[in-house]
Amino acid sequence: MIDLEKWTTISRKKVFDGSPWITVFTETVQLPDGRIVDDFYQIDMPDYVIIYPETREGKILTLTQYKHGPQRVSLTFPGGYLEKDESPMHAAVRELLEETGYEAEDVVHIGSYQNSANFGCGTGHFMRAYGCQKIAEPNTDDLEEMKVTAISQAELWDFAKAGNLVMVDQIALLALCSQPELTGS
Amino acid sequence: MIDLEKWTTISRKKVFDGSPWITVFTETVQLPDGRIVDDFYQIDMPDYVIIYPETREGKILTLTQYKHGPQRVSLTFPGGYLEKDESPMHAAVRELLEETGYEAEDVVHIGSYQNSANFGCGTGHFMRAYGCQKIAEPNTDDLEEMKVTAISQAELWDFAKAGNLVMVDQIALLALCSQPELTGS
Repeated sequence: MIDLEKWTTISRKKVFDGSPWITVFTETVQLPDGRIVDDFYQIDMPDYVIIYPETREGKILTLTQYKHGPQRVSLTFPGGYLEKDESPMHAAVRELLEETGYEAEDVVHIGSYQNSANFGCGTGHFMRAYGCQKIAEPNTDDLEEMKVTAISQAELWDFAKAGNLVMVDQIALLALCSQPELTGS
Repeated sequence: MIDLEKWTTISRKKVFDGSPWITVFTETVQLPDGRIVDDFYQIDMPDYVIIYPETREGKILTLTQYKHGPQRVSLTFPGGYLEKDESPMHAAVRELLEETGYEAEDVVHIGSYQNSANFGCGTGHFMRAYGCQKIAEPNTDDLEEMKVTAISQAELWDFAKAGNLVMVDQIALLALCSQPELTGS
């Protein structure tokens, strides 16, 4: 990687407290060339996991649910916010069970990504689960009603091409798990 | 797609004004089962483009820059916020020229994705540019110092595997442009 100087945060002030969901700060930062920017926003949001779960039969577990961010029904993968002091691996196992009733033979962490280049907005931990089988009924206290469906990867791409994967992390997870470069499969 | 009822927004109040970058609202929403949730946050952010630019020689144009969201130097693709009333296509052509000095023979819109399932946080328009050639020097008024480098797709994946693609939209664009399902190439 080319080496570049970082910005220096000179001061940081909380300007909106919507914790635990969103907390907005304004920062005064100094750029490497000496310029001062006194209103650069940063937004803290909780980190979360998102899981690409493959069943023993080779299907992928998806959820259909209304999401209020895009204000539409969308195909999503299981996932959710980390609880206090919870590891991404633990959260993935827990969310997969809560939202689908399935348990995996193996869960692999395939990468973690920041949501906003400028503002932060939390980190998504991308997980891939293998050998999933149903051991219980879904049992979640999420606000959203959700339907669990197991479909093939080819069908998932048909949904994506039809515009039914609406969020950037969802399409990223599908695309990463559909090609061998990062996941080794 | 399975048909599910949407939530109904009963009222919406601006609680933090950091426009044009971020504006935070609290909404009172009614769920399909009748429950009322009176503190659901929505965050307006400007829409943006991100571009995967392939040169006539088959290399991919990348930027190396410090980004304050993840607080580290990262490999990124060219891109930026849409100006007022600007189309994603126009913004892609403009940002590619400003940030790299290159012009494309052809630009294709490969999808648009919402940044947050729960909070909104703006839409990223994903663009793929073909046949790029240099016609000028980069000329941007962005705060970030950036270095333009043309590298192969295989090298891009090496950077990704080493953890140098830090943002979810960046890895999503690389993954989408690396496999044929959505882009037809």
